[in-house]
Amino acid sequence: MIDIEKYFKKGDLIPAIIQEESTGEVLMLAYMNRESLAKTLQTGYTWFYSRSRRELWNKGATSGHVQKIVSMHGDCDDDTLLIKVIQTGAACHTGNHSCFFNEIKGEF
Amino acid sequence: MIDIEKYFKKGDLIPAIIQEESTGEVLMLAYMNRESLAKTLQTGYTWFYSRSRRELWNKGATSGHVQKIVSMHGDCDDDTLLIKVIQTGAACHTGNHSCFFNEIKGEF
Repeated sequence: MIDIEKYFKKGDLIPAIIQEESTGEVLMLAYMNRESLAKTLQTGYTWFYSRSRRELWNKGATSGHVQKIVSMHGDCDDDTLLIKVIQTGAACHTGNHSCFFNEIKGEF
Repeated sequence: MIDIEKYFKKGDLIPAIIQEESTGEVLMLAYMNRESLAKTLQTGYTWFYSRSRRELWNKGATSGHVQKIVSMHGDCDDDTLLIKVIQTGAACHTGNHSCFFNEIKGEF
């Protein structure tokens, strides 16, 4: 069993980047607390903590749009997670496959 | 000019996911405040806000490992950014190309 406590040294929530394994597309970012990270590791599907609803959230439990985990990595200073998944249906509640659909125009 | 204020409704910092455009590899996550987001948009290179040093941070200014922006997207609820870049050298201060090199083993 891994020591999950190291991911909560800076606070009670850690951001988790969700990336589609087959395409490399970044689908969403959500937050995990200790309990949701533990459930994610136990079940192999993503669980998050909703900051607005203040409750655990099993991604796809209502919509069926679950995320089956392929791999998980922590970053160099243990304050962000990268989770590669097999996404069923759309990741975004808007129906978009990815949540990142609002392009920002700049000078680049 | 885009309205950047909408990205700071929940707080003074917004997480920015940095993804390598050519490979799809997620390189790092860092935080932007209003000033660093404005400088990022103005210059076409990433600027962050360091929570530990409490200062603006032009990624690569010291190491030369700059990130030239290819595209930027906001997510569905305007509280996360996804930035695709051309990465010079390694993104991680450890010398790893990506910060996400610590694999987490689970039952999946």
